[in-house]
Amino acid sequence: MAHGTSGNTPYTGADALCDTLLAGGVDVCFANPGTSEMHFVAALDRRPRMRCVLGLFEGVVTGAADGYARMADKPAVTLLHCGPGLANGLANLHNARRARSPVVNVVGDHATYHRAYDAPLTSDVEGLARPMSDWVRSTDSAATVARDAAEAIRTARTAPGRIATLILPADAAWGQTSSDLPPLPAAPAAEVSEDRVAEAAAAIRSRRRTVLLLTGRALRAPALVTADRIARAAGVRLLAQQSNARIERGAGRVPVERVPYPLDGAIATFRDVEQVILVGAAAPVAFFAYPGRPSSLLPDGCRILTLAEPEADLPGALAALADALGIGPGSHPLVQQIERPAMIDGALTPDSIAAALGALMPEGAILCDEALTSGRRLFELTRGAPPHDFLALTGGSIGIGLPLATGAAVACPDRKVVALQADGSGMYTAQALWTQAREGLDVVTIVFANRSYAILRNEYRSVGAGEPGRNADRLFDLVDPVIDWTGLAKSMGVEAARVEDSRAFADRLSAAFRRKGPFLIEAVI
Amino acid sequence: MAHGTSGNTPYTGADALCDTLLAGGVDVCFANPGTSEMHFVAALDRRPRMRCVLGLFEGVVTGAADGYARMADKPAVTLLHCGPGLANGLANLHNARRARSPVVNVVGDHATYHRAYDAPLTSDVEGLARPMSDWVRSTDSAATVARDAAEAIRTARTAPGRIATLILPADAAWGQTSSDLPPLPAAPAAEVSEDRVAEAAAAIRSRRRTVLLLTGRALRAPALVTADRIARAAGVRLLAQQSNARIERGAGRVPVERVPYPLDGAIATFRDVEQVILVGAAAPVAFFAYPGRPSSLLPDGCRILTLAEPEADLPGALAALADALGIGPGSHPLVQQIERPAMIDGALTPDSIAAALGALMPEGAILCDEALTSGRRLFELTRGAPPHDFLALTGGSIGIGLPLATGAAVACPDRKVVALQADGSGMYTAQALWTQAREGLDVVTIVFANRSYAILRNEYRSVGAGEPGRNADRLFDLVDPVIDWTGLAKSMGVEAARVEDSRAFADRLSAAFRRKGPFLIEAVI
Repeated sequence: MAHGTSGNTPYTGADALCDTLLAGGVDVCFANPGTSEMHFVAALDRRPRMRCVLGLFEGVVTGAADGYARMADKPAVTLLHCGPGLANGLANLHNARRARSPVVNVVGDHATYHRAYDAPLTSDVEGLARPMSDWVRSTDSAATVARDAAEAIRTARTAPGRIATLILPADAAWGQTSSDLPPLPAAPAAEVSEDRVAEAAAAIRSRRRTVLLLTGRALRAPALVTADRIARAAGVRLLAQQSNARIERGAGRVPVERVPYPLDGAIATFRDVEQVILVGAAAPVAFFAYPGRPSSLLPDGCRILTLAEPEADLPGALAALADALGIGPGSHPLVQQIERPAMIDGALTPDSIAAALGALMPEGAILCDEALTSGRRLFELTRGAPPHDFLALTGGSIGIGLPLATGAAVACPDRKVVALQADGSGMYTAQALWTQAREGLDVVTIVFANRSYAILRNEYRSVGAGEPGRNADRLFDLVDPVIDWTGLAKSMGVEAARVEDSRAFADRLSAAFRRKGPFLIEAVI
Repeated sequence: MAHGTSGNTPYTGADALCDTLLAGGVDVCFANPGTSEMHFVAALDRRPRMRCVLGLFEGVVTGAADGYARMADKPAVTLLHCGPGLANGLANLHNARRARSPVVNVVGDHATYHRAYDAPLTSDVEGLARPMSDWVRSTDSAATVARDAAEAIRTARTAPGRIATLILPADAAWGQTSSDLPPLPAAPAAEVSEDRVAEAAAAIRSRRRTVLLLTGRALRAPALVTADRIARAAGVRLLAQQSNARIERGAGRVPVERVPYPLDGAIATFRDVEQVILVGAAAPVAFFAYPGRPSSLLPDGCRILTLAEPEADLPGALAALADALGIGPGSHPLVQQIERPAMIDGALTPDSIAAALGALMPEGAILCDEALTSGRRLFELTRGAPPHDFLALTGGSIGIGLPLATGAAVACPDRKVVALQADGSGMYTAQALWTQAREGLDVVTIVFANRSYAILRNEYRSVGAGEPGRNADRLFDLVDPVIDWTGLAKSMGVEAARVEDSRAFADRLSAAFRRKGPFLIEAVI
């Protein structure tokens, strides 16, 4: 590949990076740049094909890259500044990694020869990157940028997706290099293991009580149709992992339940199950440990088989399993009927919010769920809504909801994105609202303003610590002062309204669905 | 030490942690807890002597711990939740580490036996902690908590201060243990190296043009008096490192200039210097590398000597140096006279803000400077103000100003804290305003609302990239929409006002100085 630049500007490592990204289909850059990235910014500036989206904090940048990847099925690139800038983005990279989203991070760093001087911003960037990355490399010079960027893209695109972190020293960005770029290596194709398929088929034929535990691409509509055929013909139960990057669901699609979050409910889900067959999923475990309670959710003696590792071709594995079981494509799948919940009047509650959402949400909506304790019935009450996508908090690292919605909206400008946001976790990365305003993104944010870290209050009780005293109360309650989410949103250019009863909420929600652009509803519950 | 708890509650590892902290003089906890810390929260709740201060984001927590440590000269403890919670706090831990502030981090983690299950929130907590910590340990069980906490405190208190990160698995927190706690090991005393003193004295006697480069405790008032005696008697120049954790300055104190931030000015400062004697400081280097420019700020052939390593007794080393040079305590130091700058009328500018601050600030103020490009004359125009402390961004990781002011105000409730805050970096950790409101902290925040990452625009020019185009403009400008800082502050319970001319600014500032409690001035420049 040869790529020209205009005029007499020398071709730099930063140019090679941009051109490699574009050649690899990476054309959205979520960015929070710093001084050491100026040559990269200059190269981006010479390439208007690259869409640059500014986040005012790095957690917004990485969370948006995750939301983008989940909906676009390809990586965006992030632009982060040195170790501390990367550090600010790590929490949402943790979630992205658990979602197995493809992300390419470009982290600017000091010039290679400047590192030894230990200037104030110097830090161990590789050490910071490693815990939340599947691949980390610090490129040596302008000459190696294209090769390393190509490998970062290939890594990120390795199914279902990986976190690739490329560290770009300033002198590698500003150094001159050739514009003859090496060919892009193709990402390896996801595969199906015939042995695992045969083993799973044999296990199913044994007629033990079986759960097929799904995640990843197995939760897209076509794969769910295959899974449904297997479930009905072979008498196995379908279940989605507790938390999933993306589920295609709603009317006309095969419905699938999730493993519940609360420990008792999760254990009850697997009671009497004799074998679990993993389809991209992990063996089900408790989210947290509790004194005297088990870590595994499965009953003693329950077998665990793997039909497909997370990296495998999950839809292909399901199809192969159906074939191995002799299940033909014959019958129509048992899909969800359109079934809008009844609205609930009176005081606003998490349930009345979920009911209104289920009743009013438009076709093609993208729900980004970080409602936590307030969202326990969201999944159920949106089940029969028009077809939509459901994106969840995959890594338990709070502060992803608003960035995730931001990235999903960049990926899908013609769809309505709904951020379902607990107030405590929303405060981690509220800066995402500014990006939504800046980019005119079509996101409706519902803040569940219960004005507490309700999950902690629940957990405090469940560890038997009794009633909270002053120190605990002060750590659980988001009062004194109450956060004015409406004012907060407006301060960043997002229109907003506060509602305190169910009817007003429904009115605001349908108005927000009728218009385009960001809108925030502070739902006081 | 034996510590009782009330009633029949079993004594847990979390209790042992709290009691060890209190015994070690650590009685402020900046916290953003999560589920795995509930037993620690319960133990805190049983100890009202521990002051718990909630931050709504971990960058607030760690930045506040830094501000507290700089003013209290002792560590606070932070409470962070698992790897991602720690990750969110790393950027300001980087600054704290560069400030050599003492900080004890307690990071909750999964129960030891639960880690192997790779639940969604599992991550390499030690790996994340290491780059920004001087000491990291994951305690094994309830029985080892007190010992490990004692070592964390001893490490943090090792002069001048270190970052100690103690990882607390949930089962170590909830497990029962003995309330007979081991004795606290004392932190090692800071020392003076006689060899280094003799070497520095000999170098000064050589009559080469010499700079005494100071930082840390060498910038407190008594040490500066000693340094001034040396400077005047021996004809050496005093200079503070570019960025310092804390300088005691203002009227009645020995004034000291800082190495400028811009590269040209920094190099000019050392022109003709023949030797630099480091007093806790690092050899002066460029903040960033630039093509074709040097990394070191010193002229060729300039000697570098070390009077005292950062860990040494810096005031003691200066006193020993004065003795070695035969300089008696005789004369009065040449201190700064009270000298308020004239106010500047007309349109609001960074300089008119700095002048008004210098003219109006009360005695004992604590200035927390993250004004960046807008603050270039702040230091100069506050030089003759009444005695005050000046706290700077030590590690170049932006987003510390508001948290730093928060922590300083917790440490010094009877002093007026002034946060000098650039708007771009203020958006990283604006959640600190909520903590200021919650705790009723006496902080005046001045937001320099230039509505851009001005430093990037400057740097873009300086790398010769020409005029920014659309992609670069969109990454540099904080417009479309403009951030309404007044509304943002009010949404978190902090009173605020926007001003656009110098007279209105001065009026607002003096009103803010006359009242108690947090107030934010959005200074549109």
